[in-house]
Amino acid sequence: MTTVNLSLEDAHALSVTCLRTNGCDDPNARAVADRMIEAERDRCPSHGLFRLPWYAKGVASGRANGHAKPTVEKLAPAVIRVNGDNGFAPLGQQIAHQPLVDCTRETGIAALAFTNMFHIAAMWPEVEALANDGLCAFAFTASYPYVAPAGGTKPLYGTNPLGFAWPRKDGPPLVFDQASSAMARGEIQIAARDGHSVPETAGIGPNGEATTDPNVVLEGAQLGFGGYKGASLALMVELLAGPLIGDMLSFESLEDDGGTGGPPKGGELIIALDPARFGNPDGFLAHGEKLFEAILAQEGTRLPGARRFTSRKQTPSSGIDIPESLHQEIQALM
Amino acid sequence: MTTVNLSLEDAHALSVTCLRTNGCDDPNARAVADRMIEAERDRCPSHGLFRLPWYAKGVASGRANGHAKPTVEKLAPAVIRVNGDNGFAPLGQQIAHQPLVDCTRETGIAALAFTNMFHIAAMWPEVEALANDGLCAFAFTASYPYVAPAGGTKPLYGTNPLGFAWPRKDGPPLVFDQASSAMARGEIQIAARDGHSVPETAGIGPNGEATTDPNVVLEGAQLGFGGYKGASLALMVELLAGPLIGDMLSFESLEDDGGTGGPPKGGELIIALDPARFGNPDGFLAHGEKLFEAILAQEGTRLPGARRFTSRKQTPSSGIDIPESLHQEIQALM
Repeated sequence: MTTVNLSLEDAHALSVTCLRTNGCDDPNARAVADRMIEAERDRCPSHGLFRLPWYAKGVASGRANGHAKPTVEKLAPAVIRVNGDNGFAPLGQQIAHQPLVDCTRETGIAALAFTNMFHIAAMWPEVEALANDGLCAFAFTASYPYVAPAGGTKPLYGTNPLGFAWPRKDGPPLVFDQASSAMARGEIQIAARDGHSVPETAGIGPNGEATTDPNVVLEGAQLGFGGYKGASLALMVELLAGPLIGDMLSFESLEDDGGTGGPPKGGELIIALDPARFGNPDGFLAHGEKLFEAILAQEGTRLPGARRFTSRKQTPSSGIDIPESLHQEIQALM
Repeated sequence: MTTVNLSLEDAHALSVTCLRTNGCDDPNARAVADRMIEAERDRCPSHGLFRLPWYAKGVASGRANGHAKPTVEKLAPAVIRVNGDNGFAPLGQQIAHQPLVDCTRETGIAALAFTNMFHIAAMWPEVEALANDGLCAFAFTASYPYVAPAGGTKPLYGTNPLGFAWPRKDGPPLVFDQASSAMARGEIQIAARDGHSVPETAGIGPNGEATTDPNVVLEGAQLGFGGYKGASLALMVELLAGPLIGDMLSFESLEDDGGTGGPPKGGELIIALDPARFGNPDGFLAHGEKLFEAILAQEGTRLPGARRFTSRKQTPSSGIDIPESLHQEIQALM
């Protein structure tokens, strides 16, 4: 595959220009670009510039509001809601960070419900930022119907990731952000683009048949990780990101899109806990490290997120390599 | 296998007598018996009378306090802690239910940290009870080191279940309670007892080798469901049930046991959310039903927990069948 090497700064500038050309104002363009380049910086291309055409088309078509002004309100002593004003998630997430931190420190645990937003960004930067402020955090979001329910064969749930972060004593937090499906949607799309096969656990064809062809999975349904247990998690995330907070289920989001192929609109729930308000305010950090040491004492292990933090040290100097075809697609959008 | 049929009432009375004979006072014996018979009633034998000898020995040895008087305190506006007074979990859980419901309704989301308790009970009755009061709830608990970390071969995490419940409009809540491991510990023990094999995904032998022999898995390590993603969940649960709330990690719990083979002591975290304090107080129940209808519209599906609710209608008249060997073991403990 022919690639183009870009510095992180150039990739960011390219993103901002492309988004502004397609109808985002500066704050929205920068927030989305920040999130994509955080993914590229950590070498997670499936949430990087790969998503830029989708963002650009979503705003150019008028489906997403490129001038969104998200608003924050308190629904209960420990519940905050952000109305995303029909824009992309990252700007609302930036605005909501400090109110959530403040609320969590006050009550010990708090929830943040994002509604009326388009969610195609990685979630780990959000929970990582909360853990950088000393909190433990979960994030849940739905998407479009991609994953079959346990026992079924038709897509119903989104890939419905769970993000989690825990603060560490020295250095970056422990963070993971994993789909309830065996594979992330973007990973399957990239396998299809690059002509690779996928494991048989990743999904099934349109008639429920076994397959390792990513194109057939994209026409059929993805499967939950570990079978029915992953599907249970996907179901849980639908409830948390939809009915709980008054936003859409994955299949409602697709109906709402009306076949335009735009990014999924929907809700997101974040739960943050302040360990300093639980039972071991002075010892929780050291206690967590005891677990991490025990994990790393076993040969062959690494902590979730560790690879991202390694990449993060390298890409500021190495830059990132994106497929030339993607680079051309982005150029054509400007 | 020769079995003995018991009515639910007789099974409950047998449990109370056995626990009292071994050192529980009446409130503790009844709370533990209630929880075990709820499992038997729902035909989940791995959390039923199968656990009674472990409870009985745990209290007879003096490791667990059969006269525990759990206490409830508020650590923050949305954080409650229950000190289990070194007893079994069910009594503390009964006592904490209403304070948690009240707190959650006030703040919108609340956490309940159980510490200083022995946890070998099913968690779904707790989250189900919260959903019966209209709340959405999570439960997390660790146990003993049974599960290898991702990439490793030695047991480190507990099977670390996640319980979840969502209230339903008519009828019992949607509930699941699933181990982070591919199989529950009790299921593997029962497979070993009954001479059945287990799937290769269930675990590995002492040297990391593949196996389908449950006895070899019990000597080696269990694996997370879906591989590394289940292991990530197990890691998360360790942090929530241990360092977050100031209780023990699974491997610390085993050290604390000191080789007596008693039940695992440790912590449990419950998070409850009141959907009436989020964005759709009048519509969240109907909206959840819309998802459940879409699931059930697919052939071959059922909702998590549905089998339990079916069993629950049958066992009050059919009674339950327990292995004669278990019945004899219980008789010998009285």
